[in-house]
Amino acid sequence: MKSYVSIGLLGLGTVGSGVVQLIQNHQEELQHQVGCEVRVKSILVRNTDKERDIQIGQTFLTSNPDDILQDPDIDLVVEVIGGIEEAREHMIKAIQSGKHVVTANKDLIALHGPELLEAAAQNQVDLFYEASVGGGIPILRGLSEGLVSDRLKKVMGIVNGTTNYILTKMDEEGQSYEAALKKAQELGFAEADPTADVEGLDAARKMAILARLAFSTNVSLDDVEVEGISNLSLQDLHYGQKLGYTMKLIGIAQLDDQKVEVSVQPTFLATSHPLASVKNEYNAIYVKGEAVGETMFYGPGAGSLPTATAVMADVVAVIRNMRLGVNGKTVVAPRFKSVLKSPQERYGQFYFRLHLADEVGAFSKITGLFNELGISFEKILQTPLNKGELAEIIIVTHTVSLENFQEALMKLRDLPVVKDVISYYRVEGNGAK
Amino acid sequence: MKSYVSIGLLGLGTVGSGVVQLIQNHQEELQHQVGCEVRVKSILVRNTDKERDIQIGQTFLTSNPDDILQDPDIDLVVEVIGGIEEAREHMIKAIQSGKHVVTANKDLIALHGPELLEAAAQNQVDLFYEASVGGGIPILRGLSEGLVSDRLKKVMGIVNGTTNYILTKMDEEGQSYEAALKKAQELGFAEADPTADVEGLDAARKMAILARLAFSTNVSLDDVEVEGISNLSLQDLHYGQKLGYTMKLIGIAQLDDQKVEVSVQPTFLATSHPLASVKNEYNAIYVKGEAVGETMFYGPGAGSLPTATAVMADVVAVIRNMRLGVNGKTVVAPRFKSVLKSPQERYGQFYFRLHLADEVGAFSKITGLFNELGISFEKILQTPLNKGELAEIIIVTHTVSLENFQEALMKLRDLPVVKDVISYYRVEGNGAK
Repeated sequence: MKSYVSIGLLGLGTVGSGVVQLIQNHQEELQHQVGCEVRVKSILVRNTDKERDIQIGQTFLTSNPDDILQDPDIDLVVEVIGGIEEAREHMIKAIQSGKHVVTANKDLIALHGPELLEAAAQNQVDLFYEASVGGGIPILRGLSEGLVSDRLKKVMGIVNGTTNYILTKMDEEGQSYEAALKKAQELGFAEADPTADVEGLDAARKMAILARLAFSTNVSLDDVEVEGISNLSLQDLHYGQKLGYTMKLIGIAQLDDQKVEVSVQPTFLATSHPLASVKNEYNAIYVKGEAVGETMFYGPGAGSLPTATAVMADVVAVIRNMRLGVNGKTVVAPRFKSVLKSPQERYGQFYFRLHLADEVGAFSKITGLFNELGISFEKILQTPLNKGELAEIIIVTHTVSLENFQEALMKLRDLPVVKDVISYYRVEGNGAK
Repeated sequence: MKSYVSIGLLGLGTVGSGVVQLIQNHQEELQHQVGCEVRVKSILVRNTDKERDIQIGQTFLTSNPDDILQDPDIDLVVEVIGGIEEAREHMIKAIQSGKHVVTANKDLIALHGPELLEAAAQNQVDLFYEASVGGGIPILRGLSEGLVSDRLKKVMGIVNGTTNYILTKMDEEGQSYEAALKKAQELGFAEADPTADVEGLDAARKMAILARLAFSTNVSLDDVEVEGISNLSLQDLHYGQKLGYTMKLIGIAQLDDQKVEVSVQPTFLATSHPLASVKNEYNAIYVKGEAVGETMFYGPGAGSLPTATAVMADVVAVIRNMRLGVNGKTVVAPRFKSVLKSPQERYGQFYFRLHLADEVGAFSKITGLFNELGISFEKILQTPLNKGELAEIIIVTHTVSLENFQEALMKLRDLPVVKDVISYYRVEGNGAK
């Protein structure tokens, strides 16, 4: 066996630079952990002449992927270029030439994870992706090792730092969505085109990955229902606060009777829930298991060095496996094909806000309708509006099936006393300690 | 290879019963994860005739440890009897007969962990102890795998559920220490003799274990400074709240310039710190790394099934290692001999409360003294007392060396205007997001 391990790095952006820095600065620690030297041999970049913040010799850089993928001395490929097709091709090539792969690419793993993992298993190489969810938070290992013996029931995650930053500013400082987004962009927490973040797509990819591991199923990205935060109004956040809730973009993966639901949506969380105090750009994943009860993993969900620690945790795992001769043998395939719940099988509490004619008996028409449908209320807030003859009513239901709630919404809209259903949101975490 | 793995269980108390339940109820999941059947073959109990809550055939029980330790069909011993000497003897015997060991015994690991781990390595067996710290929270794997590539600087833990429950009741409901302790005893969160919990000894054991893994050093239990919560007054908690702090029993392990400090003491935490919202019997471990920044692991720190999930995570790891043929090869020995910091090398912020003669110029004598010693104040609270001519002053210092602060306390007591130094506590988490 060689006295060192050679890494080929695909990409030298934010995360790639962090990986190089960690390998340079923590070399002694790494050697102690894995028992050999860890070298970066070649780095794939688009432009080898570009000025970079990071100190790295020109000779390490190449714009030809084959310099890495065809180099027999390279044991391990770290993929941090992002995107789908190019990354996928490189990864397949690496796997087929017997190289282990570590990736931070959530888009790719969410879309093509199962087939890539299968290719890795067939070629007896490791494919690890801890950095694809929750940045520096070791949540994938938490699920597949730490909580492996439990039957997990629910995973709720604040898995997108951009939106959590925006919501924190809206919630705590009363900033508008637009102002908070602008601030996030200035600070580098949001991209120029923020769509993938604010519309919940980024979070959806991470939730698909989490749901697969938590429930040992083959959830696909299409199975994830997604709603973003770009239409949120401060008014709802304000009413939420009055009722004891904090608005968060929450990914929920839930398993009941071997059926799953996976969704991402703006959600009112009880302020006593552990996720409610996760602020700014931080991420956290809350995991509920039959035996363990409630756990939560908290930390930085993005950033150069934090994400690089997750990449390097995988690199250490690969090298340890190399030295033990067990690469490609440590991943457990999913146990179940995922079956999605129908709306009758999905339960939750809901907040909704409506405008009601301010006339005698109007409110009792609402309560009558809900009573008929067997839906009871946990909280009610009523405010007169300065818009003529309207009252604004906010209601939080007790737990109800999604189907039942959707029917109620439809019937509400048909009631003459109901002028408008302004908004509705899922509510979570009531009864949390 | 056998088509099953046989476990011998030492002890059938709270955690042992949880382990049996998990193995019974999650057998299919376990088989999927490890690829073979997982059997409990024999259980060591003091009294085989005792009535038990758990359903287990009489034939599984034995009061003779050799029925387990000498049985060649038993691959893995799970030690959950607790205590030191007996557990240690059994464990050594198991290791010497080539059996892997999983333990939840923090006392034993804190005291004899290094020598037991060495014995395990020599005999090429695994010795895992995830359940010894933080109950169901997979914190040891978090440190030794998830954050393995980082250089960790600080670990702060709420690692004792009993004291956290008591402090939550005191802080939120204004209960006295005695009343809160009584309530904790009624609920089964505190033992009849609560000394080990309330005096911080239990937390100290866990902090020794955490410090070893976080800093790759051989910290011993004697290196841990300990102060409990039995002398806390509600008055200080109340002043702390006014200043934006929550009182917690915090274990702190910190590394600077390759020197460590490990301590457990009642500490005022800024309410914005992630640990401040950890309530009741819950535990959490906050980890700060050079690269990753701030992370936190939260969950149930005790209890039958939660702790059993941690035990079973270790069992799964042992069996996976067995099937890969790599037992006894996955543990990394500490890299450093631990060197403790001197009081000059230990820095922190401090809260202190004193009674001052209510006369002109008294306060300026205090500020003068601190000015001379180069200690500045972050917060000051002054309240007139109804005890004749006294004023009560609460001061929070900026960061200062422990030596400097201790000198200040001594000199304070010598000032004629200072009638009494009532209390002082460490302050942490200022500047947390």
